[in-house]
Order: sequence, then structure tokens, then C-alpha cells
Amino acid sequence: MTAYNLPFSSQSDESLLYGASWYPEMWPESEWPVDVAKMKEVGFTLMRLFEFAWKRFEPSEGVYDFDWAVRILDLLHEAGIQVMIGTPTAAPPAWLTSRYPEVLGTKADGKREGHGQRKHYNAHSRVYREFSKKIVAKMVEALGSHPAVHSWQIDNEMSGFDYGQETREAFHAWLAETYGDIENLNRIWGLDFWSQAYDDFSQVPLVVANVGSIEQPERHHPSLVMAIARFQNEAWTRFIADQVAEIRKGPEVLITTNMTGTINAMNWWEHFKVLDRSGASMYSDLSYYHYNYIRFDRLRGEKDAPYWLLETAPNWSGGGPVWNIHHDERGIRAFTWLSMLMGGSMVLYWQWRSHWAGQEMQHGTCVSQTGQWMPGKDAWQQMAGEFKTHGKFLLENPAQKGPVGILANCENAWLFSIDPIHPDNRYADRLRDKVQMPLVRHHYQRDLLHPDADFSAYKVLLVPQLAILPEGLQARLAEWVEAGGQLMLGPLTGNRTTEMTLWRDSNYGGLEDLMGAGQTLRFSPHWVEKTIEVVFGDGTACHPEIWCDAFAPRADTEVLARYRGGYGDGLAAVVSRKLGKGRVVTVGCPLSEERLMGLFQQLAEAVDVHPLAEGGDGVLCCPRVDAATGKLTALGLVNTRKTSTTIHIPVSGRDVFSGDQCGPGVPLAPLQVRLLKVAASE
Amino acid sequence: MTAYNLPFSSQSDESLLYGASWYPEMWPESEWPVDVAKMKEVGFTLMRLFEFAWKRFEPSEGVYDFDWAVRILDLLHEAGIQVMIGTPTAAPPAWLTSRYPEVLGTKADGKREGHGQRKHYNAHSRVYREFSKKIVAKMVEALGSHPAVHSWQIDNEMSGFDYGQETREAFHAWLAETYGDIENLNRIWGLDFWSQAYDDFSQVPLVVANVGSIEQPERHHPSLVMAIARFQNEAWTRFIADQVAEIRKGPEVLITTNMTGTINAMNWWEHFKVLDRSGASMYSDLSYYHYNYIRFDRLRGEKDAPYWLLETAPNWSGGGPVWNIHHDERGIRAFTWLSMLMGGSMVLYWQWRSHWAGQEMQHGTCVSQTGQWMPGKDAWQQMAGEFKTHGKFLLENPAQKGPVGILANCENAWLFSIDPIHPDNRYADRLRDKVQMPLVRHHYQRDLLHPDADFSAYKVLLVPQLAILPEGLQARLAEWVEAGGQLMLGPLTGNRTTEMTLWRDSNYGGLEDLMGAGQTLRFSPHWVEKTIEVVFGDGTACHPEIWCDAFAPRADTEVLARYRGGYGDGLAAVVSRKLGKGRVVTVGCPLSEERLMGLFQQLAEAVDVHPLAEGGDGVLCCPRVDAATGKLTALGLVNTRKTSTTIHIPVSGRDVFSGDQCGPGVPLAPLQVRLLKVAASE
Amino acid sequence: MTAYNLPFSSQSDESLLYGASWYPEMWPESEWPVDVAKMKEVGFTLMRLFEFAWKRFEPSEGVYDFDWAVRILDLLHEAGIQVMIGTPTAAPPAWLTSRYPEVLGTKADGKREGHGQRKHYNAHSRVYREFSKKIVAKMVEALGSHPAVHSWQIDNEMSGFDYGQETREAFHAWLAETYGDIENLNRIWGLDFWSQAYDDFSQVPLVVANVGSIEQPERHHPSLVMAIARFQNEAWTRFIADQVAEIRKGPEVLITTNMTGTINAMNWWEHFKVLDRSGASMYSDLSYYHYNYIRFDRLRGEKDAPYWLLETAPNWSGGGPVWNIHHDERGIRAFTWLSMLMGGSMVLYWQWRSHWAGQEMQHGTCVSQTGQWMPGKDAWQQMAGEFKTHGKFLLENPAQKGPVGILANCENAWLFSIDPIHPDNRYADRLRDKVQMPLVRHHYQRDLLHPDADFSAYKVLLVPQLAILPEGLQARLAEWVEAGGQLMLGPLTGNRTTEMTLWRDSNYGGLEDLMGAGQTLRFSPHWVEKTIEVVFGDGTACHPEIWCDAFAPRADTEVLARYRGGYGDGLAAVVSRKLGKGRVVTVGCPLSEERLMGLFQQLAEAVDVHPLAEGGDGVLCCPRVDAATGKLTALGLVNTRKTSTTIHIPVSGRDVFSGDQCGPGVPLAPLQVRLLKVAASE
Repeated sequence: MTAYNLPFSSQSDESLLYGASWYPEMWPESEWPVDVAKMKEVGFTLMRLFEFAWKRFEPSEGVYDFDWAVRILDLLHEAGIQVMIGTPTAAPPAWLTSRYPEVLGTKADGKREGHGQRKHYNAHSRVYREFSKKIVAKMVEALGSHPAVHSWQIDNEMSGFDYGQETREAFHAWLAETYGDIENLNRIWGLDFWSQAYDDFSQVPLVVANVGSIEQPERHHPSLVMAIARFQNEAWTRFIADQVAEIRKGPEVLITTNMTGTINAMNWWEHFKVLDRSGASMYSDLSYYHYNYIRFDRLRGEKDAPYWLLETAPNWSGGGPVWNIHHDERGIRAFTWLSMLMGGSMVLYWQWRSHWAGQEMQHGTCVSQTGQWMPGKDAWQQMAGEFKTHGKFLLENPAQKGPVGILANCENAWLFSIDPIHPDNRYADRLRDKVQMPLVRHHYQRDLLHPDADFSAYKVLLVPQLAILPEGLQARLAEWVEAGGQLMLGPLTGNRTTEMTLWRDSNYGGLEDLMGAGQTLRFSPHWVEKTIEVVFGDGTACHPEIWCDAFAPRADTEVLARYRGGYGDGLAAVVSRKLGKGRVVTVGCPLSEERLMGLFQQLAEAVDVHPLAEGGDGVLCCPRVDAATGKLTALGLVNTRKTSTTIHIPVSGRDVFSGDQCGPGVPLAPLQVRLLKVAASE
Repeated sequence: MTAYNLPFSSQSDESLLYGASWYPEMWPESEWPVDVAKMKEVGFTLMRLFEFAWKRFEPSEGVYDFDWAVRILDLLHEAGIQVMIGTPTAAPPAWLTSRYPEVLGTKADGKREGHGQRKHYNAHSRVYREFSKKIVAKMVEALGSHPAVHSWQIDNEMSGFDYGQETREAFHAWLAETYGDIENLNRIWGLDFWSQAYDDFSQVPLVVANVGSIEQPERHHPSLVMAIARFQNEAWTRFIADQVAEIRKGPEVLITTNMTGTINAMNWWEHFKVLDRSGASMYSDLSYYHYNYIRFDRLRGEKDAPYWLLETAPNWSGGGPVWNIHHDERGIRAFTWLSMLMGGSMVLYWQWRSHWAGQEMQHGTCVSQTGQWMPGKDAWQQMAGEFKTHGKFLLENPAQKGPVGILANCENAWLFSIDPIHPDNRYADRLRDKVQMPLVRHHYQRDLLHPDADFSAYKVLLVPQLAILPEGLQARLAEWVEAGGQLMLGPLTGNRTTEMTLWRDSNYGGLEDLMGAGQTLRFSPHWVEKTIEVVFGDGTACHPEIWCDAFAPRADTEVLARYRGGYGDGLAAVVSRKLGKGRVVTVGCPLSEERLMGLFQQLAEAVDVHPLAEGGDGVLCCPRVDAATGKLTALGLVNTRKTSTTIHIPVSGRDVFSGDQCGPGVPLAPLQVRLLKVAASE
Repeated sequence: MTAYNLPFSSQSDESLLYGASWYPEMWPESEWPVDVAKMKEVGFTLMRLFEFAWKRFEPSEGVYDFDWAVRILDLLHEAGIQVMIGTPTAAPPAWLTSRYPEVLGTKADGKREGHGQRKHYNAHSRVYREFSKKIVAKMVEALGSHPAVHSWQIDNEMSGFDYGQETREAFHAWLAETYGDIENLNRIWGLDFWSQAYDDFSQVPLVVANVGSIEQPERHHPSLVMAIARFQNEAWTRFIADQVAEIRKGPEVLITTNMTGTINAMNWWEHFKVLDRSGASMYSDLSYYHYNYIRFDRLRGEKDAPYWLLETAPNWSGGGPVWNIHHDERGIRAFTWLSMLMGGSMVLYWQWRSHWAGQEMQHGTCVSQTGQWMPGKDAWQQMAGEFKTHGKFLLENPAQKGPVGILANCENAWLFSIDPIHPDNRYADRLRDKVQMPLVRHHYQRDLLHPDADFSAYKVLLVPQLAILPEGLQARLAEWVEAGGQLMLGPLTGNRTTEMTLWRDSNYGGLEDLMGAGQTLRFSPHWVEKTIEVVFGDGTACHPEIWCDAFAPRADTEVLARYRGGYGDGLAAVVSRKLGKGRVVTVGCPLSEERLMGLFQQLAEAVDVHPLAEGGDGVLCCPRVDAATGKLTALGLVNTRKTSTTIHIPVSGRDVFSGDQCGPGVPLAPLQVRLLKVAASE
């Protein structure tokens, strides 16, 4: 196994942290010590508190009460349990929303949000931003210096775009600031189309930008919808930054928040810039664990520190009014450990004790509302011990990053949400199912990277469907390839301007220079996908999907595959060129997993990148490396299936849990977790 | 066959009544005698009139015209046909809704209802209530003493909740009256949850309470949604009572209305309290006749008198703009007779003569708009004769009630509508398919009873999913069990407070005393239902559904079944205890039909309750008993299938229709109806 | 093959016209000559321009600029390319909609349309009508006399009903004008039904008339919904006529517009009355080409001149944000030629050059936004040549009309949309699939005719589901039958009044005289369709669909088929009578294709009407006749399938494309087009 000179997390935590969310405000003070004793019994080390407690902190405008919270922090501190404080802005109290109704959000259908749910505020609201800053400032003042406090979380699972009047005015101001004058906007959005040109920014409609889905309620000008998605996200970035600024006024502390999903309407990469740690909520049944792998790959890739899993189910979760089960203790242990092994240093369950009222009574918890242990206690207690025992080793031997990177960002997800080209072209799903999961299944360690990330230490980069190429990326990629990088571009990469229009001079707006080819034809294989093929030099073939670009290769460019049948018959579908010490391969259409991996492996082998293991369907390999040398020191193996399997690894090691000496063949029982400390290799 | 000392209907009618709805206001007066002659020809004895005739009665505000109606009543009276008068409030005239638009309902989406449909009013509207009382008072004055009048119907198929401003204000007043002060409401609804606590009742939103379905448009606080369902129903109860009070000012007369469905958003049990007879509209194709059996069981159980079927199809019905066929004359006869045999004394078809205009032109009728007979005339004529011949016997030998009762109410339907726990947990459907239909198929006579009903004479009671146990019920059940009752509790019975919150002290809020067990665990089998089992002492087993409670039995409690696999492995799933002369069995999860009936039969046999028959798939058994002794005197048998079958009964008797001497084996042709007068038994 | 004395198009064009839409306003003037050169290269002869260029013509209110447009016309004229000018009213500019927001449409949900789409105006708006007339007048003044101008198109794919306040007021005025006084409306709509009667026209709601679908959002009074559909269409007719009147003020020129669909909410037959040529947009994949055949049959039947296909895909089309492929060059050629052979004289592609911005970037085009040829160029170039070579012959030998006519109109489509009777009763779909396509498959030439059309020269007429029989039609049909016409009436023909109510005296309102029979019974076979039959005299049978009328034949009327089973058992289902020299057959229910064609062929043979060919599944036969004698001079044959086939024709001829001498067997390769000039026959 190769020792890559790879990036890894240089910052870390002191120990693996383990716990749950707790809402003590739902319970009489007399029950608090009983709960804390149970937390201690099971071995939890960190609890998340206060995220919906605004009304208790500020019962009426300007009247504050933090004494009760201090008493809870005291109790936990005495028990040796740390605390993450959640800012309570996801649930503004009724006095605020009734006195200042302008803080309420306005939904896509034009209706005002109402009290009784969460997230009913408008992140654009100036009044709400002021109230949010003030409550956070008061919390920092009252609680920020308490020794129990480990970290802060901003709000809770933020999301949503606003369509109210204040937001509309803000949008017009944003347009003016962004585009200068209306003629400029008319020109660059091509508003001669359908006589759409505006005379004034105030005429521009704030249309629904449902950029998390390919179902758009209206079919508006793509450049406009994209602008709205950008504008709406800026409000969220500012909303988070406002609160962070207040917390930073207090003692130094780590700050995070819990994103949901992977790539959707919220530009989490942007929002996380001011935060110290990447964090997420993740709920999935065993059968859908793969929904989370790409999130781990992204969280790990994002910060120079372990990520935090801020919410997951201790046994089951309640997806709305119905239940969504997580399976048994083995499944819970597999997932909890998987998060730690993939690069996390904290797992918190949602939640500690069942709500006895409200919308979330059905959620799985650690303790029932009557105070009984719920299913899972033995597993939690076991893991608490394991995290204590192995935490230091894992923190000193962080998860490997790279050597493969996949570049993705939100703007391109929005682009294909607005203009999907093909009914199956769901950007985030395809990224997971057609690019990342093939790498997982072939046991290549990979990170999901924002194009702005420093990818200089990576060996192979995949850049699929990055239609809008961020400014400067082409030059950075070229430099990296010249230094030896192996780059796979496309499909659908580089064919749109920043404003989501098509290029008018050359189809890729200059990316042709890097590709070593121009475009001769573009066409959709929709409805005839099964009758046309992409045929490689060795005779292997697959059916193209979604979209086909055919290339006109330049002199120094080799054709690796051609279309057979249909409009593009005989034209180049995959081209390759050497550039400096590296190589650029450009694919004109999504390929089958087999053909994609065939191409990928050629690139990988050229830079000595090999799979971590072979076989072991459903087993996740989690390489850990020496923080000083980057050498592989351990390998986490998690069998995510309910069947036994054997995986073959090129090293051998001793499993810290069972004591088994394993390798090259490593048997895994259903849902078994292994952490092999590897014998020194190479 | 056992002679139970059972409840039966002590009040009755003088004869079986048979007829249809008629809208003479659609026709010139010259055609009325032609229609009446046809009614007489076919043998109809009661017609329902006037339910949408407000505009004709009050052409403009305060101007009344009842002369035409008197002339119709005269005509019918001369022909010996009685009349049920419908109050016309389902269709307020345009002058009313345009001059007083505040009477119009407001839909869940906030839109005002408009003219041109029915039921466009708001039952909360003070103005509408006054107009409704006035038109009814005027009708009573003008028509109430006419000798043709047999009875009154209130409005027509009432339904719907209102979300307008007047209703919102009424809701706030209702909350204040119900909960006293806002802090009390905050406390008992647990509104520290998500900082939901209110400062003032006026802040509480009137959210959509879609309690007839498990699809809720918004996910609001369950206690709030439940409160709204209760509040909305109180308006309907009051609306009905208003009209009844006006009618009671006239001559003594029977009053009813036509409910739809069985257990839905309308708390019909409550609404019917001021009415004399239970009544319903029922439309179903032959293939869906079982949709109606539970309604018959409920109507029979509700009043101490035969029920009335106020609307059913004479041949087919028009479900909206498309047709919904009822099958041929045999099917019509089977269903009409079934209603009479199950405990009814009136069947009215909808409707007499086809509308020549409007939304319901396609409905099946007795006579076409051109005056021709429609399909079914021979069957109607035959039945009219049969009802005349056998009416006296049937009225003197009413339908048996009990010996088995199923307790159900609307609040628990609403509860599982708001918080279904599992996507298949449709309360009313499960009650029908998983509890009542198994009893039907095994030929046990049963009633669907409201928990407030007097169940003292019943032998076996089933209490499934009565999560909110009405006040006082536990004590009444305990007393009944001690006197010998056989009680099956659960699943999901007793685990919620009246306010739909969870109990905080013990999981069943004290019902543990009756169950003889506490709860050790609750979990959802969702997604793993097929991999875990409930295993009984004799080795029989089934897969649990929806929800699982596991029990900690007390000393005097026997474990009948345990979970195998999953969270609850080895824990008690069904427990049983003796209490006085009776027995309480508590089930922790819905069982398969086979296992449920196995348990049930043990309880039934202990109190000498046996099936009425064996075999005869699709045959409904309708026992009739001597009103004085409760002894079985006749057995109605209706084959609801299009195939022949044979049913085995423990008695023998002579079929009044065919003259056949039958029993123990009774052959039934497709859709055949038999009424066996049984030879004295036991 | 018989020489019918048939109608055909007496007016014609000078040549077959071929081209595309072009939006030069999206491009810098410097690129215009490049595009024009390409058009010339490929051989295009007509381009459609300006349909969305309002903002460029009138940048702000009252300020006009047509110079740029003149320069484009000059360029095209120099290149010998003609121009169709589109009026730009489908896309009003932002200055108009923001200064006069009352011109914006109001959707069915009550929401105002917004800028950024097309068709956001209200055709009822007095202000918008004035602006529309003014811009058209200005265009006529500036461009109308330019020698490049060949024709005008009104707006673009007009559609939509309006539900705003101005429209509501107009509706009330329309009602007053149409019905005189409110009591008259109450009476003829039967508004005693549900107390719906109005006191004043202003009370009548403008409800949603979703008459293009059988899904109605509300279930309102059918007569009201029908009135709204009529009222809304009158606005469209007037809107079109307004613009036509402006164009007629300029030089004499042909005017058309592009309808979509066949029979839907827009009463195109009415709208086209003031236009010179029938025209349409048509997009369909090869697999759905049959969606268009009925449109060709309708367009050909409508005007006394060849029709124009104003939009179709040059390769693929973008149905919203996703692609809808048209298949390869053979498919494009097959469809383009098919349109010409069926009776067209113009085919325009949508569009010339890809939009580089906006909602329609994905549409297939002739030239990409970067100026590259898109797939299809060879086919277009080939066809341009063929149209030049064979145009004169085809224009002098127009497409045959008749000898079979199918009568249909929009009002009856709306009727069955409002009151479909059966969930499968989609009028336009059934007309296509159950009546027209059987004739296509059996190679009978047929036209889809409006009942007002002059059908005197037709030999056989089919009149299915013409529930509302237009005034005077019965007399015209009777006269035509007496002169020898073969008429098939029904099912469902004649059973409604003009106001969509049922007849009260006789079921067919007097059509009984023509049918030679009355109705004895009507019933729905819904849910029992498979168990009942219509049995013909020769023992052949089929299952009835949708609706069944049973007849009481008069003395001179013969029964051809009877029902077996169900309500109508033994009653007459199909009746026939001689009338003068002709025959009337009335069918009581939709028949199977086999039984329908059996009946049809008897009628056809009686007047010497025979199929054009036999066999050749998927081949369309397009007879062309000598304009002077009506004799068959050529036969177009288009194989619309991707498989080879052979068709047998009763003539022989030489294929102008291949030179093959063909007949009686004519082999056709996949998607092959043949045009046989036939040897003189008979």
C-alpha cells in the first residue's frame, strides 16, 4: 500500500465525544439529576442543549432568565459532561412573531409562515437578525464562560428561501449592487429573449427557485433563478456570520452547525466558512446508509479537523409522524463507529429523552418520557467505553484524505435543477450513485471537494457536471495537471457561463485549451439511449446517458472512445491528452460504472494509486494515517450488510476490538466493525 | 344457539318504510301527479323532500312561499305516501350569501367558498345560524302539522371544518373557556417544546386539522390539532341542535340526518345525541359492500330503535362526474334487504327522478328525466310488497345486539390521523379490516359502540387503539369485567392523555391496574415487520404490525405470547389476567386475523358466545330476536357474492321468500336473500 | 380506385415553402449575414421572425424602432428568402406590464401572472387589446410593405382562460347580453337545483372551466362551466380579429396562426375563421406521430387551401427543461414530407439558431449558438431540393379531401370534459383512437370536419359524441342523407340541449326523427363492461364501453345489434334505416374497432367508397388529385415505422424519389417516403 503524501486533519479534538441532545426545559428541575445520572451511567461525554429554548431565556421582550440554564450546566459539569450550546433562533417565541410579524417567513406560495412549527422566520429580515444577535449575545454573556461549555451550534438545520416583500426589496438592491445597471443585466442575461428586458431592477420578479429539486413550479429565465438562489444563500451566510460574531466576542470556543443533505439549495460550503467544524444531521435506515457515505466524504474533505455528527438516531427516528427505523444495536454501532472511522470525532444522538408532547414524540430516544431505558443502551455503553479506549489513537492517526478528489459545488447542482436536460439528471444523486459510490465499491479513498479547496496534494481529480467552471479553476487545474495530476473532465463540464447562459464563441468558453479538443456536436440520447453506444478502443462499450458531447480532437489529443449509432455516429466521445507530467481525459457523456472505473483505473495506476482492498461487498474501508508521516497505521472496516463477507486487504493487522490478527483475508460478521492496527508496511 | 339476555331496540316503527328522494321543485306542477302515480305504482311508502329548496321557500329575504310545498304534501298524502322533510340549509340561496358573505365557509387554503355548490356555509357563523333557525321555524310553521309529515332530516351529509376569521375568533374564545388561562394551556400542551408557548390565546393559530386522513398538510402540535378538531365539531353539534330545537317547537316528530362514512372528522356520535334515529347515506358497488357492514353495526348499536338508510342507489350512483355502478337488480335487492335485516326500518333511494340540469344528472334514479322507468323497477316493486308482508314480523323481532362489542370513538381516529405512528395506521380502516370484518367472517354478531354506550349486557368487548381512554371508562370496564365480562385491551389503548400528550408517570396513565402489567418497552416494527414475530404458548405465531408494546406482567398476570427477534426479543407481547368473574387480555401489537380470532374465541367460549354459522363465505348472518325474551326467532341470510355457496347454521327454519325449509346446511344462490323463521331452539 | 367528385383545395401557394423561426434580436447585427448565408446554403425559402420582439420594436411606451427589422428583411430579401412576420403580443414588455398591471392575466388559482414567461397577458383586457392593436398597426406601417413579407402570424400558440376582476365583469355583461334577464338564465339552467338560482348576474361566479381535461378542480353547474368556456373563447376570437383588422389595413397578405393540439379548450375552428390559412405547431417523437395525423386531417379539412406547419422540430425539441427527441434524419424527413403530402404547403422548423440564454436553450435547432450545423443538415438540404423539384406538381395536384368525414367540435369536447360520464371518456383522445385511427389503419381518406363545414360532397359521415347538435345540423344531415349520404350517428349524439341540460320531452330532443328510433333505456356499463355484449345479426359481438343507449325502433327501422346481459339485455343497440337515397345508422355505445369498421364498411361500400390500400402497417397513404377533375394523380406513401413493410395499392405508379415503378405491392424501407405518380386508372 502506497504512502501518499496526503493532506489530513492537522487540528483535532482532545477526545472522541459522544452524547445526545437534551431538552431539560420540557422537564421539572427535580428530574434533571436523574437524567444526568443516567447519562453518566451510559458514559456520555457531551450533551447538546438549549437549541429551542428562546422562550425560556427571554419569556417576554427584553426580560431574560438564564439561571435555570446555569444550574443545568453546573449539574453536567459536576458529572464531567461537556456541553454544546445551540443558539435558539430556529424557534422564535410567540411574543416576537406576534409583535413583529415582519420576521415571519413567506413561503413560495406567498403565504406567511405561522407559529407552532420551527424555522418560521425570514433570514433576510433586518428585525429578526437584530433579535437573533441580541439573544445570542445575552447567552454568551450568561453562559459563555461556564466551564461545561465545549462548543456552540448555530440555529438548527437551517434551510429555506423567502419570498416576502422585504426579501423582494433586498433582492432588487442585490441585483443593483451585483449588475450595476439594468441594461447590463438585460444584456448578460440575454433578455431580448421573449421581450423579457427590464426597465428597472424593481420590475424583476422574485420567482420561486426550487433549486433543491428538478421539479420547478414555474419555468422562469434560468439566469434569474440562479441569481435568486445565490441571493437567498447570501442571506443565510450573513445570518450565520451574525451569530458567530456574537459568540466570538466571548471566550474562545469551537462553533459549528448541523447541515442536512449533501448538495442542495443551501450552499453549506459557503455557510461553513466562518465555522470551525463541519457538522451534520444524518438519519438513514441501514438500507440507506450509502446516502450518508458521500456526506462523510464531504465533511472530511471540508475542514482541517475531524467533523462532528451532531444528530443521528440512537435506535430509530421519526420522519414526520411516522417512524423510520434504524435497525438493531449492531446497526447503530456500525453507523456510530463508521462516522468516527470515516473522520469524525463526535457523535450525538437525537435525542436523550422522549418528548412527552409536541410534534416529535415518536422519535427514538435513549430514555423514554417515563424514564425507562430505550433499546440500545448496551451498545451505547459499550461504545462509550471503546471511544475512551481508542480515542487517543484515532485522534493521533486521523482519517486519510485523498488521494482521489471529486470536485462539486452547489451552483452546478442548482444549474441542473433549473435546467436538468434529462428527467434523470439529479446532480447530487448522480454524483453519489454514478461517481462516488463506484469509488466506494472499488475501495478507493476519496473526498468530495469544493473547487476552491486546495487539491494540490491529490493524485486524481474527477470533475463531472461542473458546467459552470468557477473563475480561476481552469488555470489551477492546468497547473496541477502539468505537475503530474490525472484529471477527468466532464461530462457537461464547462459549457455554461457564470450567468448560466451558453457560451457564444466556443462551446466550452475556452476550456477547450485544457481538454485538447473542441465540440463538434451536442445531442440528447433521451428516448434512444438503449440504441446508441460509446465504444472504446478495446471494443468494450456502454450506452451513453443524459447528454452527449462529441469532440473534435486537436493534434495532440487521442480518441479513447467513439459514439456508435445516432446523431454522433463515429464521432469522438472520450478524448485524452498528456499535459506536462499529467493527463487530461474528457468524457462527453455519463458512462456505465464499469467503463467509468476502467478509465479511472488507468489514470489512478499512472500515479500509483491503488484500491485499499478487494471484494467485501458492503464493507467500508476507512484508512487512518500517521499525522506526521502520512503512512497508513490503521484500517477501519465496517460491514454495513446483514450478511457475512470477507474482504481482502494488502496489509495485515490486529483488530483492537476482537484481538483477531487479520489479513490479507478479513472475515466480517453481519454489521461487524473492525479497527485493524496495521503492521508497518512498505 | 345461546339465548343471550341482550340489548335490542325497544323503540320501533309501525312499518318498514321504503321510498326515495324527490325534488319536485325541478319540475312543473303539472308533472307532479304523474310522478306520484308512479310512486304508488311501485309501492313506495315514504318520500324525502325539500332538502335543497330554500330559494323556493324564501325567494328573497323575509319573503316566504310554502303553498307549492303544501300542494305536494297534499298530493302525496292523498296517495298514502308519507314524507320526510329535509331542512334546506345545505344550500343557502344566492341572496343570502351575496348580502351576508360572512356566512360563506373558508377552506383550509384560506379561500372563501362560493355559490354554485352545496355546503358552502360556515357552521360557526352567527348570522348563518340565525338564518338557518328562521327558515326551519318557518317550515315547521307552514308544513310541520301536515298529516303527510312522518319525520325530518337536518341539512344533508354535513361535513367540513372552517378556517375563516369569525371561526378563528370563536376558537380563541373556546380555548379561553376550555383552558382558563394561557399558562395552563402552555403547561398541559408542553409548549416549552420548540419555544411554542403563547402569551395570549389570540396568538394560537387555527391550523388545518385534516383529521379524516393521515395526510396532514402541516405538521403542527398534536394537542393543538386535536383541540381544533374538537372545537370544530362542537359547532356542528350546535348547528344541528339549533335546528332540532326549532322542529321540536312543532308537533312531535322523529328527527334524523344522513351521516356519511363511519368514523371520520365529523363526531357523528356526538351530533346524533339530539336526534331520534341514526341515519346514513351509503353508496358502494357490490365489490365494496363490506365498506357498509361496519356502518350498519354502528347504526344498530347507536340508538334504541331501528336505523334509517336515507340514501342509497336504486341502480347506480354518480360519484362526481363519473358513474359508480351498483350492479343489477339482484345486487340492489341484496343490499336493500341487508340494510333492513341488519337492523334498519327504512330504505330511501337517491333519487326518484333524474335531474335534467345541474351537477347530478348522471346519478341513477327510479325514473328518467323524460319520465321513463329506469333499471330496477321490478326489484323495487317486489321489495315494496315484501316489506309490507314481512314488516310487522321484523319490527316485532328486532335485530339482535351484541353479544360482542367493539369500542371506538372519533377522538382516537383523529389521534392516529394526527400522529399515525406507521403509514398504514388508518384507524377506521384497520378497525373495519382487522377487527370487525374478522368477526363478520366468523359469523359473530357484533356492534360498534361508543365508549359511553351502556355495554353492561355485552359478553365480550374489544378495545383496540383507544389511545385516549375516556374519563371513567377504566372504572366501568373494571366493574363489567368483575361481573364476568371478557375484555381485550389494545394494542395502543390508554397510552395518551386526553390532551394527546404522553403520560409522564406510567406509560398507560394507570390503566396498568386493569391490565395487570406495566410497559417495559415500546418500539416500531416498521421496516422489520417481516423479521420479527409474536409467538404464543402453543407455538403459533404471527408478525406484529404498526407498533409494539412489551409488558412487565405483575404477579397475577399470565403471559400468552412473547416477541421473538428485534428490540423486544423475549419480552411479553400478550398478557392475561383474571379479574373477578371475568378476564382482561392485553395485546401489545396488532395481530394477524388468525391469531386475533384465536384469542377472541377463547374469551368468547368462556362466556358461551358462539358463532351464528359456519362457512358461507360472503354471507351475512342477521339474527332477529323476540323483543320480549331475546330468543332467536329468525335469521336473515344475504349472499353478497355472485357465486353460490352453502352456510351451516345450528338451527333450522323456513325461508319466508322461497318457502324452503333450511338448516343446518343452507344453500344460497348468487346474491340470494333468505329470511328463515327458526324453529324454536334450546 | 374511384374518382370521387370531391372537394379539394382550390386556393394554393406558388411553391412549397420551407424554413424556420429565427430570433435575430438575440444576436449582434454582424452575425446576421452569416446566418442568412447558412439559410441560403441549406435552401430555406421562408423564415418566421419577430414574434417576441415587442421590446425591441417599442423600447418604451410610444417610442418605436423598426430600422433594425427593415435591415433584416433587406438581407433576407436579397438572399431570396421570404418572411412570415409574427405579431409580438405573446410577450408584452416589462414597461407595459408594470405600468398597466391590469393587462396581466389571472390564473385559475386567482394569482396574477408575472413577467418573465410568455402569455402573461389577459386577452379580455381592454387596455391590452389597445396596446396590441397599436403595436401591430405600427409594424404594418413600418414593415408591411417590404417585398420580403410573405405572410403574418398572429401571436404565438395562444391559450388560456382568465379569472381576474375585469374578466369577471365582462362575463356578467356577456351573461346579460346572452340570456337577457336572470330569471331566464335560472330557468334554462334549471337553477332550482341545489337552490342555485341567482337574483342578479353579478352573483354568478366565474369558476374554473378546465375544459381541456376531464379533471375539473371544482364540480360546478355544467351549464355555467360551458357558458364560461364559450365566453372565454369569444375573447380570443376578438383578440385575433383585432390584430387581423390592423394587418388588413396594409397590403394584401396571407394571415395565419399556430394552434396547438387538436380539440381542446381553445375553439380554434372559431378563431381561424378570420384567418386565411390553418396553421399549427406540432412536436412529437416518432412513436407518437399518430398524435399528429388527426391534426393534419383537421387542418386539411378546414380551409380551401393548403395548411401550414408553422413549428416542428428540426431534430429534437425541448419539452420544458427536458428533451424530447425526434429521432434521426430519416424520421425528420418522414415527418416533414408527411406534412406536405397530407395537404400542407409550408413546413417551418423551430428554430433556426439555438438561444444562448433563456428558457429554451435546450431545443433542437438548425445551427448551434456557436454557429455550427446541428444534426439534420443533410436532410434539410435534400428536402429543400425536393420541394423545389416537386412543389409545382403537388400544388397543382392537391391532397384529396373526403370521401369520409368525421364531424366534431369543441363544445362537445368541453361537454365531456365537464361531465365525462366515464373516467375514460376523453373526447379528443377517443375521437382519434377509436374513430379516426381505425380509418387511417384501414386506409380510408378522411377529414375531420366542423359541423358547420359544407359536407355536401362527402359520401360517408361519422357523428360520434356530438351530444349537443348544432342548430340546423339535423336538417342539413337529413337533406344530405336523402340525397344519398351514409350517416353513422352516435353514440351519445344529440342527447343534450345547447345549454348542456338533458332534454325533458324526448331523450334526443327530436333527433329521433332522423334516427328512426327512440330511447328505451340509458345506462353505464362502467365496472361491468367485460360482462355484457353488443351482439350483431351475424353473431359477431363486442363489449360496449362508456355509455349505453338502448333503442325503441320505429316501424321502418331495422335492428342491427342488441345488448346481451346487464340492464339492457335484449334491447336494440344499433339501428338502421333508409332515408331517401341514403341510410342512417345509429349506434348506442362505442364499439370495438373491428365492429365499428364492419359497420362502416357496409356504409362505405354502398356508395362505392373503398380503401386506398391494404396492409402496410404504419404506412400513411396520401392521395393527390387533379385539381380540375378530382382524379387520383399521385399517391404519397410514408412508412412511419422503423421496420420495413409492403403495402398493396390498387394502382401503380413511378416513385419520383427513387424512380421505382411500384404497385400493386409497394415495398417501403424503414421511414421511407414515396411519391408515386400514378398511371391513369379507371
